[in-house]
Amino acid sequence: MEHPDDAAIFRMPGGDLLVQTVDLIAPIVDEPAAFGKIAAANSLSDVYAMGGRPLTAMNIMCFPAKSLPLEVLREILEGALDRIREAGCALVGGHTVVDPELKFGLSVSGIVDQGEVWSIDRARVGDLLVLTKPIGTGVINQGLRKGKVTDASPAYQHALLSMVTLNADGARAGRAAGASSVTDITGFGLLGHAAQFARASRATFEIDAAAVPILEGARALVAEGIVPKRAGENADSYRDRIGGTLGAEDAVLFFDPQTSGGLLACVPEDALAVFNRSLADWPLGAAVIGRVAPPGSHDVVVR
Amino acid sequence: MEHPDDAAIFRMPGGDLLVQTVDLIAPIVDEPAAFGKIAAANSLSDVYAMGGRPLTAMNIMCFPAKSLPLEVLREILEGALDRIREAGCALVGGHTVVDPELKFGLSVSGIVDQGEVWSIDRARVGDLLVLTKPIGTGVINQGLRKGKVTDASPAYQHALLSMVTLNADGARAGRAAGASSVTDITGFGLLGHAAQFARASRATFEIDAAAVPILEGARALVAEGIVPKRAGENADSYRDRIGGTLGAEDAVLFFDPQTSGGLLACVPEDALAVFNRSLADWPLGAAVIGRVAPPGSHDVVVR
Repeated sequence: MEHPDDAAIFRMPGGDLLVQTVDLIAPIVDEPAAFGKIAAANSLSDVYAMGGRPLTAMNIMCFPAKSLPLEVLREILEGALDRIREAGCALVGGHTVVDPELKFGLSVSGIVDQGEVWSIDRARVGDLLVLTKPIGTGVINQGLRKGKVTDASPAYQHALLSMVTLNADGARAGRAAGASSVTDITGFGLLGHAAQFARASRATFEIDAAAVPILEGARALVAEGIVPKRAGENADSYRDRIGGTLGAEDAVLFFDPQTSGGLLACVPEDALAVFNRSLADWPLGAAVIGRVAPPGSHDVVVR
Repeated sequence: MEHPDDAAIFRMPGGDLLVQTVDLIAPIVDEPAAFGKIAAANSLSDVYAMGGRPLTAMNIMCFPAKSLPLEVLREILEGALDRIREAGCALVGGHTVVDPELKFGLSVSGIVDQGEVWSIDRARVGDLLVLTKPIGTGVINQGLRKGKVTDASPAYQHALLSMVTLNADGARAGRAAGASSVTDITGFGLLGHAAQFARASRATFEIDAAAVPILEGARALVAEGIVPKRAGENADSYRDRIGGTLGAEDAVLFFDPQTSGGLLACVPEDALAVFNRSLADWPLGAAVIGRVAPPGSHDVVVR
């Protein structure tokens, strides 16, 4: 049901490399403006992950006009517009349909400067693996739905900050540091995307489990039995491609589907200082979580 | 709930004029491949109506995976791809979400050659109003839902042919004939779009009711009481801007919301032969339905 690659590159007649993506999601928080910001940041992320600059965005709204006031629609669009502006992007239109279930997202077009398209097939052995956002948004979302997390809790606030934050700064840092290959972490979870990434690059990604940043409260929720269904599905799909040992909680967190997740960038070791300097004001704790190794028996090895 | 203008023009850094649109619709026919073709033709139409050439398309699918087999999804996408290829356009991606109600459409990007963007504010007094497709798809759709029209009936076949046909040829004819201003007829019906068009151009559109092409069987359905709700809403919104006299059946048909409707083009009278020659093989009976007059007391006058 999900296309593995949501962004595509197309050369315009005038020479520009157009990068395009479309994404829409169901609400994962109750507050309409926050949902709009998250959905927009999530949609824009695909362009950043390809090394692009977003130029235009169009709203796509499926709205339950019979059960929700139009005020909610307005607040979602305002939240999205806030992020679109933050991205330096022009809102150029959109489409709304009446639908029993609320869904929202953006169709985004950007450009990539010549020779600077990022893909997942050029990780270089020796590169450091840097993750720019903590993982666990799926767990926090599930916790919200089960009443284990409230809007006032630090777990929610941390997840919200992470999800509304654009991947623009991370992309800029990756560019500054000469990152060889980049992706963003979304529905397949950290290990699902890492496995795709490593295989496309014909490498093995060695990941240090203890180094992976986790959203506040997410591990405790997993210990309480909060397990997103999709995390289990991802584990089923990718388990055979993952070597090493994975604790039970890590298995949930590392396969947890992310909404508006961070970038996973392959950064040359000698450029790590440049990367970190570029992200000096980043509020989300980017971390080196491992290294690109020569291809072995698994796509990813967790230590 | 609907943006009045779904397509936007954006100048790329390399100089290309990017025209973008997004549209998704609920199924209006039972056959999945036909629905995919209609939705695609409907989405692509906005680019043609702006004078553009479609370059890239992305699928947007809301699919009820619990109630419909995946085969249906595949057939819809294949139908859409058929039209995308016909348009000479590249399918570059898409996104699918599980949703209780099926919806499908495209996000389309195209380019417009310098100086050739069509808008609705440049109709010239004296121009002929040419409509490239018959109207009545909303009535036929309602007739289908009420069991008054079957898939085998000529009314359905005519409506289907009209809805799956791209507006590419009409746009080419408009270009060949030096059309001053163009739009496509969609949700606001012929008179709703004509009223918007005339007002934007500070003119009055004189329309000859008897000259307006109507889908086979549509008038009979209206006579039987088939009246799309949206036709009444359009009439309520635009009635004050329409002068002249309008029969009861014409009032429904002329405000009938169109899916994948035709182009309404303002063509210089001396270029009509060029326009018609360019559309010689057109299967849908384009017709001169009126003329652009100096601004009067109404945006549109029906005679």
